[in-house]
Amino acid sequence: MKCKVCKQHAVVDVRRHNAGFCRDHFITHIHNQVARTIKEFKMFEPDDRILVAVSGGKDSLALWDILLDLGYDATGFYLGLGIGGYSDRSQAAAVAYADARGAKLIVRSLAEEHGYTVPELSKLTKRVPCSGCGLNKRYEFNRAALEEGFEVLVTGHNLDDEVATLFGNVLHWNTDMLGRQAPVLEERIVGGTTSLVRKTKPLVRIAERESAAYALLKGIDYIVEECPLVEGNTQHRYKEAITLLEEASPGTKQQMYFGFLKRASSKFEGDAERAGLVACADCGASTMQPETGEPRCSFCRTKALALKRKHPEEA
Amino acid sequence: MKCKVCKQHAVVDVRRHNAGFCRDHFITHIHNQVARTIKEFKMFEPDDRILVAVSGGKDSLALWDILLDLGYDATGFYLGLGIGGYSDRSQAAAVAYADARGAKLIVRSLAEEHGYTVPELSKLTKRVPCSGCGLNKRYEFNRAALEEGFEVLVTGHNLDDEVATLFGNVLHWNTDMLGRQAPVLEERIVGGTTSLVRKTKPLVRIAERESAAYALLKGIDYIVEECPLVEGNTQHRYKEAITLLEEASPGTKQQMYFGFLKRASSKFEGDAERAGLVACADCGASTMQPETGEPRCSFCRTKALALKRKHPEEA
Repeated sequence: MKCKVCKQHAVVDVRRHNAGFCRDHFITHIHNQVARTIKEFKMFEPDDRILVAVSGGKDSLALWDILLDLGYDATGFYLGLGIGGYSDRSQAAAVAYADARGAKLIVRSLAEEHGYTVPELSKLTKRVPCSGCGLNKRYEFNRAALEEGFEVLVTGHNLDDEVATLFGNVLHWNTDMLGRQAPVLEERIVGGTTSLVRKTKPLVRIAERESAAYALLKGIDYIVEECPLVEGNTQHRYKEAITLLEEASPGTKQQMYFGFLKRASSKFEGDAERAGLVACADCGASTMQPETGEPRCSFCRTKALALKRKHPEEA
Repeated sequence: MKCKVCKQHAVVDVRRHNAGFCRDHFITHIHNQVARTIKEFKMFEPDDRILVAVSGGKDSLALWDILLDLGYDATGFYLGLGIGGYSDRSQAAAVAYADARGAKLIVRSLAEEHGYTVPELSKLTKRVPCSGCGLNKRYEFNRAALEEGFEVLVTGHNLDDEVATLFGNVLHWNTDMLGRQAPVLEERIVGGTTSLVRKTKPLVRIAERESAAYALLKGIDYIVEECPLVEGNTQHRYKEAITLLEEASPGTKQQMYFGFLKRASSKFEGDAERAGLVACADCGASTMQPETGEPRCSFCRTKALALKRKHPEEA
């Protein structure tokens, strides 16, 4: 196969676009796809300060790299989850990239910030690790962006991630989640102050294997291993099922995701719980007004439960 | 495993209900599930005359058998598609069931009614066989029901069929099809006369393997072979993908289908093209008003094209 642009030998085949690319033109192609996505969904402006949630994996490091290449003011944020050697190695990948690129990286950890790791939290709350991990990441990414004065938080969710989430939401018809599944979530103001920073996903046009190819071709040393706690994750099964269809009919994923955005997502907007939000009595984050008692966000409730069980003597 | 009802040896395991059944109690279970569905969706009344579209396969023969067992006035309708030995054998299965049960069966064929078979139609119109087959079946089922004075047409679509259709509609976000995907489609009146008979699907709670088990345990001799023209059918791939998820998490299909009916289908109602229907100038069936010229339904357009190509000398 030959590069669509220069007709030299192609190194990447993008089947759903029916196109091959040489190294340099693949990188340009990815830059263009991301630039187009940022513009199309009005994700951020050239002078916005951007915080990139960096896990050390291919997607978030590729995203950070693309934003820097495109000239954006993008700072990395790494959150230590305390998942043994996996977390050590992913942090090392994030730090190594920042050093090599001369980019600014903020590092925090759940252990230092809150006194627990993800495996501990899972045991203490008796919930699957992914549940507490997701809750804590969302909370900490948002808190860091607000505290450090960033206009926007970006995450490396790629097309495969978004399609798997969409598929799961459609399997269960989680209409409130469908109402919130968008490449841009606007900032939310509660009681006069920003409670949730603007969040965007610039990689929604990039498939998983394309972000991996990008990282590889740019020589980015990302952590290949998957989280050891992820086994049995339903998201993985959804990806498998959709990948079956993508292989038989390239473009299925793109069609499902962008078709949803174009023709269906607005129908679910009313289902997303947007009204009636109040500030958490402990931390000020936005949360639902409870029927009785003071409002407490799910992060603070989960943290309080975990710490009470970890230190019963203090209760 | 033991029967949930009588604790005797179970012969069928219904994983998503976490229950086993002996032969007799499985049959009762299926009867109850179908009776419940008919009642819940107000599909028809005890004194309605029901026309059952019978293909000779497990689903339609099981459905006919269940309706007769429940005491309904159910007549079978078999449409010969002219797909070689497959059609001969499926007709024989339908006739044998009707004879054994002493039930009334109406038999028609596309060749006699319209002068072509499904394989011929596919060649003449240069479309995949499933497309012309579906169009002709829908048209002929409806025409037979109206001509013979039936109140309702029932088809053997099972839970797996409906989920695969739903999945396909969601993959492509066919919002008009989503607006019409219901276990009951009310009759449609155009120009003062009934143009589309009421259509219902009483097996939407019954999985594919359950209707097969029912037919087997009732000794119904159905045609096991699949249509030889079905290869590469996308519906099959959707079934495969969803079955992956059902195996990992029994109940997924039921959850997806009934969750859709409960929480999402109403959002797409406005997308179904319901307004602006007029009578076809050739046959009187309901069709969309064209921008210019006389209205002609897609059945009549397809038939005219096929016959013109079959007999070019008459054109």
